[in-house]
Amino acid sequence: MVLEGKVVVAQGGGPTAVINQSLVGAVLESRKFPQITKVYGAVNGVSGIINEDFLDLTQETTHNLEQVAITPSSALFSTRDKPDNAYCKEIFNVFKAHNVRYFFYIGGNDSADTVRIVNEQAEASGYEFRAIHIPKTIDNDLMMNDHTPGYPSAARFVAQSFIGLNLDNRALPGVHIGVVMGRHAGFLTAASAIAQKYPDDGPHLIYLPERNFVVDKFLRDVKNVYDKYGRCIIAVSEGIQDENGVPIVTKLVKNNETDAHGNTQLSGTGALGDLLSQLIRTNLGIHRVRSDTLGYLQRSFMGCVSGVDQHEAREVGEKAAQFAIWHNIDGSITIHRTGYYSVDYTMTDLHNVAGKTKLMPDEFINADGNNVTDAFKYYLQPLLGSDMPEASMLRAPRAEKILHKL
Amino acid sequence: MVLEGKVVVAQGGGPTAVINQSLVGAVLESRKFPQITKVYGAVNGVSGIINEDFLDLTQETTHNLEQVAITPSSALFSTRDKPDNAYCKEIFNVFKAHNVRYFFYIGGNDSADTVRIVNEQAEASGYEFRAIHIPKTIDNDLMMNDHTPGYPSAARFVAQSFIGLNLDNRALPGVHIGVVMGRHAGFLTAASAIAQKYPDDGPHLIYLPERNFVVDKFLRDVKNVYDKYGRCIIAVSEGIQDENGVPIVTKLVKNNETDAHGNTQLSGTGALGDLLSQLIRTNLGIHRVRSDTLGYLQRSFMGCVSGVDQHEAREVGEKAAQFAIWHNIDGSITIHRTGYYSVDYTMTDLHNVAGKTKLMPDEFINADGNNVTDAFKYYLQPLLGSDMPEASMLRAPRAEKILHKL
Repeated sequence: MVLEGKVVVAQGGGPTAVINQSLVGAVLESRKFPQITKVYGAVNGVSGIINEDFLDLTQETTHNLEQVAITPSSALFSTRDKPDNAYCKEIFNVFKAHNVRYFFYIGGNDSADTVRIVNEQAEASGYEFRAIHIPKTIDNDLMMNDHTPGYPSAARFVAQSFIGLNLDNRALPGVHIGVVMGRHAGFLTAASAIAQKYPDDGPHLIYLPERNFVVDKFLRDVKNVYDKYGRCIIAVSEGIQDENGVPIVTKLVKNNETDAHGNTQLSGTGALGDLLSQLIRTNLGIHRVRSDTLGYLQRSFMGCVSGVDQHEAREVGEKAAQFAIWHNIDGSITIHRTGYYSVDYTMTDLHNVAGKTKLMPDEFINADGNNVTDAFKYYLQPLLGSDMPEASMLRAPRAEKILHKL
Repeated sequence: MVLEGKVVVAQGGGPTAVINQSLVGAVLESRKFPQITKVYGAVNGVSGIINEDFLDLTQETTHNLEQVAITPSSALFSTRDKPDNAYCKEIFNVFKAHNVRYFFYIGGNDSADTVRIVNEQAEASGYEFRAIHIPKTIDNDLMMNDHTPGYPSAARFVAQSFIGLNLDNRALPGVHIGVVMGRHAGFLTAASAIAQKYPDDGPHLIYLPERNFVVDKFLRDVKNVYDKYGRCIIAVSEGIQDENGVPIVTKLVKNNETDAHGNTQLSGTGALGDLLSQLIRTNLGIHRVRSDTLGYLQRSFMGCVSGVDQHEAREVGEKAAQFAIWHNIDGSITIHRTGYYSVDYTMTDLHNVAGKTKLMPDEFINADGNNVTDAFKYYLQPLLGSDMPEASMLRAPRAEKILHKL
């Protein structure tokens, strides 16, 4: 029995390259139902809801929605607000005032928690209401999902970046550090391993938040690689921490900025890369050391996207509307891998996803804790999409020397 | 009259996305001539020559050469060595020993100087020899050229980056600084302006090395933009300097690394971005300030290339072989714009290019010195290639508020 009323769609947390596919999927599917009187998009996520900042997406052209669908970054803008119970009550009051019966929130595990709270408040009030969490994150850290929309495209960007950095490092050797987003989960940093095509390709070392970062071991690892190859490429998560859980970057950054979730600013600064570069110069006496912090391009670069990711992000958006409006249930949409490579979509209870973080499983990390396994590459490969570019190298034989024989 | 003997091709300086197109163009064209006994590729540029580190590219498959042609970064690797007269003498000795009659060196204005010196030494010895400089640089700073191979692809990467950073900044507003390569010339940083599609799009401010960077003015500019839009995106060259010619970044970096040319390390560090971010936080009280240093991805990212750049890089490689072998002349290949958009290729004397730097002309920079003009965008647009991606935004109308009326 389809509830008569409005749909509200919102986007929360960090944007991704395909988050608008989910938005457009949810909007177009919702607009099919005559019982849905309006489809609103909340501007700036939940903060837009409490301010009644709504765009009437019922009046947006289908054509422009499709143009927006292929544009990266949240078209409805976003927020880092983390609603507590009082905040959610205000959300709920606005929903009641506007006769909103369906709420689709595209976000990560924090967003799932918001959906859970609002849903509980609606139940407690006896207000007929369906709320769905639509998965989204470049970190790939939502429980219950094989992977999450946003991750494959960001992983592709990271992979293409390290293919390039490896080539550049061959041409002008030295030590090169690439810092990748990833506060707790190392899936995105691990994607750099796709660059390992030839046996001596980098990244030669990959450091993830799932393993304690020990400076002495790090330096020994780098020295070993550099002595062997005359160069070294390192991929490192911005969230690497020591055995006490202290982020390595906080040892250097004096002006710690925190967000509403109490997190230290890890992104948008070159601090970690510069710190590690300095450690290498000082302790190993290697002169040419460079670092690149891949930064916000990982989630926003215009023109690097996985086709698989586009399709799946679109599906979860439409599925949300279908589960809520056809089947009258709440929950979080999940993606399951059914074959190599095929997927299916189901729903799970919000509390299975809300506030929980999935980490890289042990079988994806090598025993030495400084690289990833073939099992990981096998897992990631089909997510990258078709036409992944590859590097080629010359194979011509060496010519004979003349002068040095004399 | 075609000299009988070998060809040596080498790549010098910073790699680009299309430098192998020039290599392959020169190699394939050279291989056509029966008088050319061998085509050698020097490994690691001029340092490879003096060590007789040659690959026999006469024995490389045409197919693999084409695969390498579309791979970014120097397939023959590179060097930052700056040969003096003694070094060039050694180069020349190796050439004589191997009966090398043609030398094609793909590089920037420093490389052109090397070609000039070796050429003069050959003349002085009475050794029949043709040396051609093939243009290459992401900085677009070679004299006599409308633009140089390597620049359009790097410009495209910068443009696509800022399209993305602008979208991300709309979604989660604040101040965002993007640091772009460019020691003396601002062409690459200026390319960020392609992201200015909608009237309030960033980058709102663009700072180039061609204009003195004044901290007070910078802060005033940022404040003006932030007060107007609630956000601000800034593109800044790594080489910005104060009125005394001191690079802004040296005010912060304690461990100044210099290369063989006496240049301070400007790349591979987040120092400048972090310095500017701190200035803004401290002086303007703006909390959310991020910086991204685009870094080495600008010249190496696998999968972002301009088709125009690919074609032109290929042409200058083949033209070098043609000018030298068919027409028996020395010099530097130059690209000239003949229409909108068409080009032609000629030769110029090496001393017109060697060691000289072209800067952004005044008509490309706005009067206030903090943005670029339409004339620049008109200049760059056809170089980016086809299928440049574009961002789209929602146009749906605002819905009526209910609660706030009460």
